Amino acid sequence: MASADSGKKPQEKEQNVPSTTTEEDFSKDNYGIMPLIQSKEKIDRELVSVRDINEKLAKQTIWVRGRIHTSRGKGKQCFLVIRHQSATIQAIICVNENVSKPMVKFVTTISKESVVDIEGEVTLTPSPIESCTQKDVELQVKKVFVVSSAEPRLPLLIEDAMRPDDPVIDGIQAPHANQETRLDNRVIDLRTPANQAIYRVEAGVCKLFRDTLDAKGFVEIHTPKIISAASEGGANVFQVSYFKSNAYLAQSPQFYKQMAIAADFGKVYTIGAVFRAEDSNTHRHLTEFVGLDLEMAFNYHYHEVVDTIGDLFTQIFKGLAERFTTEIAIINKQFPCEPFEYVEPALRLEYKDGLALLAEAGVQMGSEDDLTTENERILGRIVKTKYHTDFYILDKYPLAVRPFYTMPDPNNPKYSNSYDMFIRGEEILSGAQRIHDAQLLLQRVEHHKVDTKQIKSYIDAFRYGCPPHAGGGIGLERVLMLYLGLGNVRKTSMFPRDPKRVTP
Amino acid sequence: MASADSGKKPQEKEQNVPSTTTEEDFSKDNYGIMPLIQSKEKIDRELVSVRDINEKLAKQTIWVRGRIHTSRGKGKQCFLVIRHQSATIQAIICVNENVSKPMVKFVTTISKESVVDIEGEVTLTPSPIESCTQKDVELQVKKVFVVSSAEPRLPLLIEDAMRPDDPVIDGIQAPHANQETRLDNRVIDLRTPANQAIYRVEAGVCKLFRDTLDAKGFVEIHTPKIISAASEGGANVFQVSYFKSNAYLAQSPQFYKQMAIAADFGKVYTIGAVFRAEDSNTHRHLTEFVGLDLEMAFNYHYHEVVDTIGDLFTQIFKGLAERFTTEIAIINKQFPCEPFEYVEPALRLEYKDGLALLAEAGVQMGSEDDLTTENERILGRIVKTKYHTDFYILDKYPLAVRPFYTMPDPNNPKYSNSYDMFIRGEEILSGAQRIHDAQLLLQRVEHHKVDTKQIKSYIDAFRYGCPPHAGGGIGLERVLMLYLGLGNVRKTSMFPRDPKRVTP
Repeated sequence: MASADSGKKPQEKEQNVPSTTTEEDFSKDNYGIMPLIQSKEKIDRELVSVRDINEKLAKQTIWVRGRIHTSRGKGKQCFLVIRHQSATIQAIICVNENVSKPMVKFVTTISKESVVDIEGEVTLTPSPIESCTQKDVELQVKKVFVVSSAEPRLPLLIEDAMRPDDPVIDGIQAPHANQETRLDNRVIDLRTPANQAIYRVEAGVCKLFRDTLDAKGFVEIHTPKIISAASEGGANVFQVSYFKSNAYLAQSPQFYKQMAIAADFGKVYTIGAVFRAEDSNTHRHLTEFVGLDLEMAFNYHYHEVVDTIGDLFTQIFKGLAERFTTEIAIINKQFPCEPFEYVEPALRLEYKDGLALLAEAGVQMGSEDDLTTENERILGRIVKTKYHTDFYILDKYPLAVRPFYTMPDPNNPKYSNSYDMFIRGEEILSGAQRIHDAQLLLQRVEHHKVDTKQIKSYIDAFRYGCPPHAGGGIGLERVLMLYLGLGNVRKTSMFPRDPKRVTP
Repeated sequence: MASADSGKKPQEKEQNVPSTTTEEDFSKDNYGIMPLIQSKEKIDRELVSVRDINEKLAKQTIWVRGRIHTSRGKGKQCFLVIRHQSATIQAIICVNENVSKPMVKFVTTISKESVVDIEGEVTLTPSPIESCTQKDVELQVKKVFVVSSAEPRLPLLIEDAMRPDDPVIDGIQAPHANQETRLDNRVIDLRTPANQAIYRVEAGVCKLFRDTLDAKGFVEIHTPKIISAASEGGANVFQVSYFKSNAYLAQSPQFYKQMAIAADFGKVYTIGAVFRAEDSNTHRHLTEFVGLDLEMAFNYHYHEVVDTIGDLFTQIFKGLAERFTTEIAIINKQFPCEPFEYVEPALRLEYKDGLALLAEAGVQMGSEDDLTTENERILGRIVKTKYHTDFYILDKYPLAVRPFYTMPDPNNPKYSNSYDMFIRGEEILSGAQRIHDAQLLLQRVEHHKVDTKQIKSYIDAFRYGCPPHAGGGIGLERVLMLYLGLGNVRKTSMFPRDPKRVTP
């Protein structure tokens, strides 16, 4: 790489750079716009990550790459805050025997969000810098090169994106970015410390999901998203033009997970996109989201599976609390929320008992009716007060409100071997023992008036022997939204899709 | 569960069961068709997995669940092979003081592939049973209950599905299942030991990919599959009806990975479905496959990324050899293949040197032409002979044959900072340094006559500062097909999709 180091004139290419003065600029080799990094040559230079700069590096001269987070010129000096991911450090440049006036002036003109390489000496700060994550050290700048310039007018200011949804400073509504502006400018929005943390926690949920299930002997599988027929009765499915015919986008990997069980994989999971063509514009609906799905053959009772899933959530909650303390604190700073509570083993209530709790609280509903979103929330609050848990399992739903493949309860035909799981009163998993017998399945298909031709290969999967099994599907974005109390599923989908948004 | 154990009459429900004789059957409580396991009650019974039955369990009476793999009645006795996943064990039932004639007769009538629970005593075999994985032990059957009956006529026989693609036994072509029959009856086909192993190895590739990258500080992300415009110029994209408008299925997560880099995530990976509406009916094309994609900001040279990817493959190859010896042996038994060779660090050749090797072998082509599939194969063989590796990296492709976002080579405008990677002469990864500067990107977009409106948010992502970065996308099914020498990508996709197949 022909960097400005190697004798080239600085300040080439950039528009908003002050013209050099007629005097010889003794610092001219120490600053400027770096030519585009095009991998021209290999440079043997270590870049220290902002988060790793601490007292141990005091008095050392290091190279750092980061963005100009803020910049404040003050006569012969300029205070910068350099940001890399969630970490920030103060950098100071002052006119002195090595730093010319034009150099300081150049630095003040670098636009916010530009990526820069800085060489500087690490010094201890006289008092902690509260506005930075690296409070006890700062950089005395010796060289500055712009790696990638940001256009001077940002469509979204990071400091606005970093404020809470409804920020009040000194009793006055502070400027902040609304959800649409954030999403329209997602690449900038995602740079906030909270967003940097949210997607690391999200990756953590997936990792904990997989690690927990791997340890229990599950096999990861991949299921097709393009399917020949609407899997669950035809509603809410996206249609795809498939060569000279049509196909659909899978609303869930469930049929395929079950086929994997019929194919002897025993315990399977899959993480992947699922699609819902629902015209629901709410805080918790997306048209495309990430499903964490599992399916498991059991010996004699589907509670073997319910217990496995309950324990899975316990492991996820434990793992998040252990491994992501810093990230969760960063998120809570921008989006405050009540601490998350859970009990171990997970609380399991029967549907009818849930209805009894609601009735006690004055909420009446039919014993075979489905819970409304509002009643789910009320029940969540009751459960939280009574059992001190934000996570619980509601078991034995009425058969009438569940899909055709749900195993009826053998002890009471009104109910079924099915369950939902909730975080902070909102559903994050739906599951059941599935019917593994082709004859019974056909009866239920007929009862539900589902077209058997559409699901022939699914029904056939149970004709050649299949162990009893149960499973469930978890909505990743919902888990994270509710666990972190973020209030909108668009905050936990990196590039969310809803009926009105397919960009960026 | 009201099992046949609990005093119920056996032989209820099943059609192909012999009528009970008029004599009292002293074994009648020890066999039969179990009522459908509907989770009626919890049974405290341990089921031992077939693979775990060995000499240490000799003389113990255990319960086992498995399928009837083969069944051979011989007068007063019946030899069964019980299969669970890849493991098989022999089970023998003979008429004696505890086993009645009707019981043996019942056992002979259980259809192949039915799932059964067997109680039996583990005994040592006089000589190894070569046809089973558990060679030194067998089961003396005391009780047998059918958990799930298979229909007596199987559309695909496991023993046929277990044969090589072109099996010859004693000089005669043996019956075997062709690819279409296998895929039409995928749930049965997937039960073969080779398929049980293939998808475990596939899960292993994903795990090794993630674990290696997690250790290097990568963040897992999820990118949308539904996109507003065809990402790479419009060809080969599936169209989706999206409410009152249209959308498309992403051909790759690349734009979103890059946006994550522009959004400061530094190093990211994602595993997910990618879609290609190509009407290619070949051994290596699918319309939907699993992409293992990564993208990484680098300091000064894209070879930092190439080295990371090279090492990633080394870790995958090492991990597979270490952890999946058994599975690979099982697969090789049905699908023999040359042992896989690789060198460490991975071999990296420049495109022009690859062309020189081809020229030496008499293959002439223009220096700016793309490699044909055939020439890739020839080059693979040359490289294998010369460098003893089945994996290598071909770097610095002609700019003319790469997409618009590819960074041109600063040292020679004919070339680009791009690379493909190969296993056994077939491409399994394509990647490049991407253009991280909006102005240069616009120039290249114009040169390629791509509609800028269609990719506005992608271009905008580079207006507000972006570090230099490179990445690549790996086709999971191809990696596995080539590593295992399976010859058809449909063997490594659990439910493959091609222009002619969207079922099961």
